Amino acid sequence: MIKSNYQELALQLHKKLHGKIVSQSKIVVKDEEDLSLVYTPGVGAVSSLLANKPELASQYTIKNNTVAVISDGSAVLGLGNIGPYGALPVMEGKAMLFSQLGGLNAFPIVLNTQEPEEIIQTIINIAPVFSAINLEDIAAPQCFEIEKRLQATLDIPVVHDDQHATAIVVLAGLINSLKVVGKQAQASRVVLLGAGAAGVGVAKLLISYGFKDIIVVDSTGIIDTTRTDLTPEKRALSQATNTHHLSGNLEDAVKGADIFIGLSTGGKLPPSYIKSMNTKPIIFALANPEPEILPNDALKAGAAVVASGRSDFVNQINNVLVFPGLFKGLINHSITELNDTIKLKAAQALADVVSNPMSEIVIPSVFDSKVVEAIAQNIG
Amino acid sequence: MIKSNYQELALQLHKKLHGKIVSQSKIVVKDEEDLSLVYTPGVGAVSSLLANKPELASQYTIKNNTVAVISDGSAVLGLGNIGPYGALPVMEGKAMLFSQLGGLNAFPIVLNTQEPEEIIQTIINIAPVFSAINLEDIAAPQCFEIEKRLQATLDIPVVHDDQHATAIVVLAGLINSLKVVGKQAQASRVVLLGAGAAGVGVAKLLISYGFKDIIVVDSTGIIDTTRTDLTPEKRALSQATNTHHLSGNLEDAVKGADIFIGLSTGGKLPPSYIKSMNTKPIIFALANPEPEILPNDALKAGAAVVASGRSDFVNQINNVLVFPGLFKGLINHSITELNDTIKLKAAQALADVVSNPMSEIVIPSVFDSKVVEAIAQNIG
Repeated sequence: MIKSNYQELALQLHKKLHGKIVSQSKIVVKDEEDLSLVYTPGVGAVSSLLANKPELASQYTIKNNTVAVISDGSAVLGLGNIGPYGALPVMEGKAMLFSQLGGLNAFPIVLNTQEPEEIIQTIINIAPVFSAINLEDIAAPQCFEIEKRLQATLDIPVVHDDQHATAIVVLAGLINSLKVVGKQAQASRVVLLGAGAAGVGVAKLLISYGFKDIIVVDSTGIIDTTRTDLTPEKRALSQATNTHHLSGNLEDAVKGADIFIGLSTGGKLPPSYIKSMNTKPIIFALANPEPEILPNDALKAGAAVVASGRSDFVNQINNVLVFPGLFKGLINHSITELNDTIKLKAAQALADVVSNPMSEIVIPSVFDSKVVEAIAQNIG
Repeated sequence: MIKSNYQELALQLHKKLHGKIVSQSKIVVKDEEDLSLVYTPGVGAVSSLLANKPELASQYTIKNNTVAVISDGSAVLGLGNIGPYGALPVMEGKAMLFSQLGGLNAFPIVLNTQEPEEIIQTIINIAPVFSAINLEDIAAPQCFEIEKRLQATLDIPVVHDDQHATAIVVLAGLINSLKVVGKQAQASRVVLLGAGAAGVGVAKLLISYGFKDIIVVDSTGIIDTTRTDLTPEKRALSQATNTHHLSGNLEDAVKGADIFIGLSTGGKLPPSYIKSMNTKPIIFALANPEPEILPNDALKAGAAVVASGRSDFVNQINNVLVFPGLFKGLINHSITELNDTIKLKAAQALADVVSNPMSEIVIPSVFDSKVVEAIAQNIG
């Protein structure tokens, strides 16, 4: 369990460690002969080879399995735009989880710029050493353009985790939740609160999976085609969602809905709203660190399944369930671009790790040793 | 000793290792509580702290002791402009030596651009995670401008190793060589073949140390103020060297000289040239992988002290003698910019590791455990 003074303990631990990851030699260079092989003059033979055949870099160098975890610090956790130094401990944390859970080599990069064109050019310029790029905690809407442009330019996968890993883990949880309540995706109404990177990513993947009735609500209200204040991504969502052309706010949206997914910043879901939903409502209150409604309050209000982003409640919906296995799979299968088919496979594989879904277990634990391989192997 | 099939062995080893360094967690995340401290939600407390006090990043993150080893692949070893993938195995090798010898965290970055302005902007953009920047194998003359501009912008040391580490190790070797032959720096004539990054760096540091009579020769001949084909750096050298206004080629330059330093690409020093030098000539033939003259041939021609860049002869002049200790010292002493005073201290400290200099030992072995600390401690 998490201790109540976890913030103080986290500060102490970080100060003691002076960095959570360390880059180490795989072999000890003990004499002139070793040095002649890993460095001059022997390394020259490898350099000459790769100068002529750059595609062999993934066999002869750390390009084999190295992930860049890159953020501009513009949308970090629930903290918002806190810049590169604020983002660094999070990116280091991801790098250590890539290493420990995925067996990958990962390195955090935090950027001194939040200008999209500069971010794109910088990442293109440093890409040769990496086998995959994990964009992280970059604010919407610029995250969409940055990811799209980088993926179009680079021949390695470029994945904005906030969109895709979140979408995968949410879908996995929903697949099992629907089993628990005995409903079908096609016949279920989903209300999604929050249309940032995560909200957009989730909505798109749910559509790909087969959900037909999705209503997205942002801070202004229900997203529909009549609104004139929409970014290009929200405009696209307005055309693919809200088929019944509802208008209004969250309270209007959730009436009669089967599923609520909260991916908001500071949004709230009052218990009375849950009472207005269809029978056996599924509540994923994923805002961090404060969920849109606390799991116990949601259960009291009649929720059949409850999930949150927190580790101190059941059904923790956490990107950690996805990114180690997803990147491991992309790299191992030499997949150069993430697409919907892969994401759907990953979500199904993650859902299937839970052999017997029940209300309290719709998603595996982060520490379930089967998770990483299930995703890595099944997306190929 | 180095095996004769070292190139084949190096290729095999690199293919087996799939990268020579690995980035690892410093602690094992074994349960929810650990995860709550290194990642969400506890990491949020560290992020909030660093957002407000970025200067604490060097206490709470890998910015504590992380060196970026950065190359554009434009001047790699003796191989020339072989691009980022050709450069990568060398940068990885440096990273592993930073780790093993200096106890530092180091990460290789190879760049998809050789355009100076783009290199500068890219490095500025990724700088927040690093405590020092090691520029490596970037061609002259753009290396000078890139280093100068980055150092002026960033508040961490930016060191183009080819210039400075080479200068330090060469000066250390010369200090001891002069002891061996019983000469003084002020009264010795130095001929320096090669005016690339290393040659320029060495010439400048020798002047700072007190050498008064230096002649620099490039592929066109002796550098003097009458030449009209000089880059800004070579022009500066022409004003600070060749006080006797010699003109001609290498053969003219070495007549009567006390010291020859070869830092050329493919240059040669015929034995007859050595015979034309002053008594007890000191020959540092440092071209890689083929020295300007083989050490045994130099000795036969009358050299009193011979050094080369090769590990299969005595007196190996190798940057490895300098960079782990230099960067460790810069970081530990919170030095934000390398200057001549520091370089002179480093050279003297390195020279002093050899307690009793003799012809065959003017520089310590790369594996002498005293080297790193001698430099790291004495530059503060």
